[in-house]
Amino acid sequence: MVARVITELVIANRILAHEDVVDAYGHVSMRHPEHPDRFFLSISKAPQQVGKKDILQFDLEGNPLSKEKRPLYLERFIHGAIYEARPDVMAVVHAHAEATLPFGITDAPLRPVIHSGAFIGAEVPVWDIAAKFGERTNLLVTNMAQGRDLAATLGKNAVALMRGHGFAAAARSLIDVVRLSVYLPRNARVQMAAQQLGAVKPLSRGEIEARTSGYKPQSPETQRAWRYWAERAGCASLLRELD
Amino acid sequence: MVARVITELVIANRILAHEDVVDAYGHVSMRHPEHPDRFFLSISKAPQQVGKKDILQFDLEGNPLSKEKRPLYLERFIHGAIYEARPDVMAVVHAHAEATLPFGITDAPLRPVIHSGAFIGAEVPVWDIAAKFGERTNLLVTNMAQGRDLAATLGKNAVALMRGHGFAAAARSLIDVVRLSVYLPRNARVQMAAQQLGAVKPLSRGEIEARTSGYKPQSPETQRAWRYWAERAGCASLLRELD
Amino acid sequence: MVARVITELVIANRILAHEDVVDAYGHVSMRHPEHPDRFFLSISKAPQQVGKKDILQFDLEGNPLSKEKRPLYLERFIHGAIYEARPDVMAVVHAHAEATLPFGITDAPLRPVIHSGAFIGAEVPVWDIAAKFGERTNLLVTNMAQGRDLAATLGKNAVALMRGHGFAAAARSLIDVVRLSVYLPRNARVQMAAQQLGAVKPLSRGEIEARTSGYKPQSPETQRAWRYWAERAGCASLLRELD
Amino acid sequence: MVARVITELVIANRILAHEDVVDAYGHVSMRHPEHPDRFFLSISKAPQQVGKKDILQFDLEGNPLSKEKRPLYLERFIHGAIYEARPDVMAVVHAHAEATLPFGITDAPLRPVIHSGAFIGAEVPVWDIAAKFGERTNLLVTNMAQGRDLAATLGKNAVALMRGHGFAAAARSLIDVVRLSVYLPRNARVQMAAQQLGAVKPLSRGEIEARTSGYKPQSPETQRAWRYWAERAGCASLLRELD
Repeated sequence: MVARVITELVIANRILAHEDVVDAYGHVSMRHPEHPDRFFLSISKAPQQVGKKDILQFDLEGNPLSKEKRPLYLERFIHGAIYEARPDVMAVVHAHAEATLPFGITDAPLRPVIHSGAFIGAEVPVWDIAAKFGERTNLLVTNMAQGRDLAATLGKNAVALMRGHGFAAAARSLIDVVRLSVYLPRNARVQMAAQQLGAVKPLSRGEIEARTSGYKPQSPETQRAWRYWAERAGCASLLRELD
Repeated sequence: MVARVITELVIANRILAHEDVVDAYGHVSMRHPEHPDRFFLSISKAPQQVGKKDILQFDLEGNPLSKEKRPLYLERFIHGAIYEARPDVMAVVHAHAEATLPFGITDAPLRPVIHSGAFIGAEVPVWDIAAKFGERTNLLVTNMAQGRDLAATLGKNAVALMRGHGFAAAARSLIDVVRLSVYLPRNARVQMAAQQLGAVKPLSRGEIEARTSGYKPQSPETQRAWRYWAERAGCASLLRELD
Repeated sequence: MVARVITELVIANRILAHEDVVDAYGHVSMRHPEHPDRFFLSISKAPQQVGKKDILQFDLEGNPLSKEKRPLYLERFIHGAIYEARPDVMAVVHAHAEATLPFGITDAPLRPVIHSGAFIGAEVPVWDIAAKFGERTNLLVTNMAQGRDLAATLGKNAVALMRGHGFAAAARSLIDVVRLSVYLPRNARVQMAAQQLGAVKPLSRGEIEARTSGYKPQSPETQRAWRYWAERAGCASLLRELD
Repeated sequence: MVARVITELVIANRILAHEDVVDAYGHVSMRHPEHPDRFFLSISKAPQQVGKKDILQFDLEGNPLSKEKRPLYLERFIHGAIYEARPDVMAVVHAHAEATLPFGITDAPLRPVIHSGAFIGAEVPVWDIAAKFGERTNLLVTNMAQGRDLAATLGKNAVALMRGHGFAAAARSLIDVVRLSVYLPRNARVQMAAQQLGAVKPLSRGEIEARTSGYKPQSPETQRAWRYWAERAGCASLLRELD
């Protein structure tokens, strides 16, 4: 079980790098399927370079469960705080995908406008670290207080934008959160372009609900994307380990 | 004959993937040249990964002609309904190319503005699934009623945009529909950029007709593009099978 | 001498393809250095695939000097007509680079705004085939009358945009015209973006003249770019043939 | 020591090329760690092709310390003049990254709007060569007088835009200046997109100071990016030489 989770998490890291959601920065985690008070996350590495031996277990306050000398992600508290606040969430991504950033520094709300963007949900709140932590932070989420404040803004939503920084996405499975993170920037680009053309018609609440409620991580449609992205990212042999 | 069609359809799948018209999603079909009440389409696979053994025959209601356990594209009804309504159409593409999406969610009409975009035709209607099927669909075309409604909006045109979703393109040959689908997003990008610069001069009706009527799938100019795209997509050996 | 010209022209074809100036379409030619009433141009091939045996000699009316069964570029008259009108011109590119197209279908004038764009010159006229040949052409330049009309619009300039189609660029050497064609779309993208930010300050006439008059195809700076582009395009061994 | 600096500088050249900050043009230098009146810079080569033997030592007036027949960068005076004016600066980049150019030809000020852009500093002045050297230069910085004028505009800032040309960036380490140069165009793209959406909230002065003062070139976070970029650029073996 743990070996499987770790392999899947390595694949997720590489997909997010290959699909340009993360670069040297950004990370993806998974809650432990048997110990909900733990999560899996890499040590401080560029996602494209993460291997199985880099994946550690953390408690929900961001402490590694085993002694570890290698450096850790400074922002692992994003993950712990969201798992703490959201028992339904099984996987989290934090990233700085370029197309999401303009919506974090303006008042224009990001909304799902294409069917593949439906999973971002009807509301995408923007968290401004300065609101609670003042105008002199380095914008990073480096402790649990900041992580919990972000999680509070996230609320029941799937995504929170982080002003001047990036986004945090939460979902009930690893495949969900990867898919969400890949299509989030595309939705953002389409919305930005459409707003230059005229008034934009977003998805209706009913459409968002119909897509979200009907979505299954193990459906052939979802597996098709996962396998396609994984193979493009050079993970064909890792996929075979899971078959 | 059938072997040739299948090889060509594999090449078309790979071209559309390599030219960024489709990603994990989107599909291309071809009407059976001898049985107009059938069409060829892959099982549920990312187009880049489609091989000869993945291509099945379907009747125009989207039923596979042979027993098949592998999952099928949920939206195969797009193809069947267009073939049913349009005896002149020999090939269909459904895709979500990013640059086409803004025109589906605003009132700005997509128009041919460059000569390579002429084949999209003078009018590009927008189909909104909600108009007939309400505000609670998942936006996918998952039955013949929806497919027929889309085909009715398409009418005699070459392309219909699908609000919040993508487009369907229809042409009298596989090469036509691939070429159309490759240049459609480019035309959309050029139009979007031009609209930021000022009033846009689209192609005239006479120019659209001159290009469309003079176009031959077997002309050296068209074959040049087909072979170029196919080789870029890694299909050099498949091309040789057809020579 | 002829062998050298042909090798250089193959390299130029591959550079233009790799730098995304041409795709399946577009072409580059060179005037014969000893017979100014001839020029070298490929048969009808995607530039990325052009080899030495594809390069033919043409007279200035676009007729191949030797019998040739392979198909020819439909628009070779662009080249002939420009060489005929401009004795100073030694090389011509015709292409459809995407970023140049918006300026051909709006009234916004394309102007040099960055130093690498200076070579497009202070004025970039727009040629509209419909002005003389009516609203029912297929937009292609398929005879000498059309080519001569384009050359007349080009006048003494380096580049003419072609409405709804692309551009023609002319220069006194092959390296010049390649460099011009690579930086023309970049200049266009920068100008488009800048116009969204506010009033744009183009290069002054004095700056354009200073750059153009000081430019030498054999200077280390120009050779640096040529070799860099050629190696990126897979032409390292062709470069060595010329050393 | 010198061998190490040279290897690092080769890596920096390749990173900047791979991350699309430079193309055939643009350069990166490093001050000599033991002789502050010297700096290391390549001969005139495209950065992607720079090797160890191409790195020379120059005095602060741009003269090579050893006899050299190979051509030199015309604009090496940018580097010398900045090192002369700024004893705190240990590394300099000059480049033409496309996304920075629109801010040099309009009155829209470039400002840090994302946390990775904080290192560009609160103010990014624009240097116009015409202000002091008139309207007839070729825009290049080809002597010390021009370099010193640019350095005066740069002042205590990290980046100066150069009107119609590019930018110069200065930092206290090579890793700093590379990181700054990679994220500068990203910050510019985000700001441009955001300005189309509405009023933009830049980073606060406190946030800029918090990030800049807390930043260490040898921190795991910075090394993570350096190694990631270096490996992507094909420098894995050069990295190993430094370990």
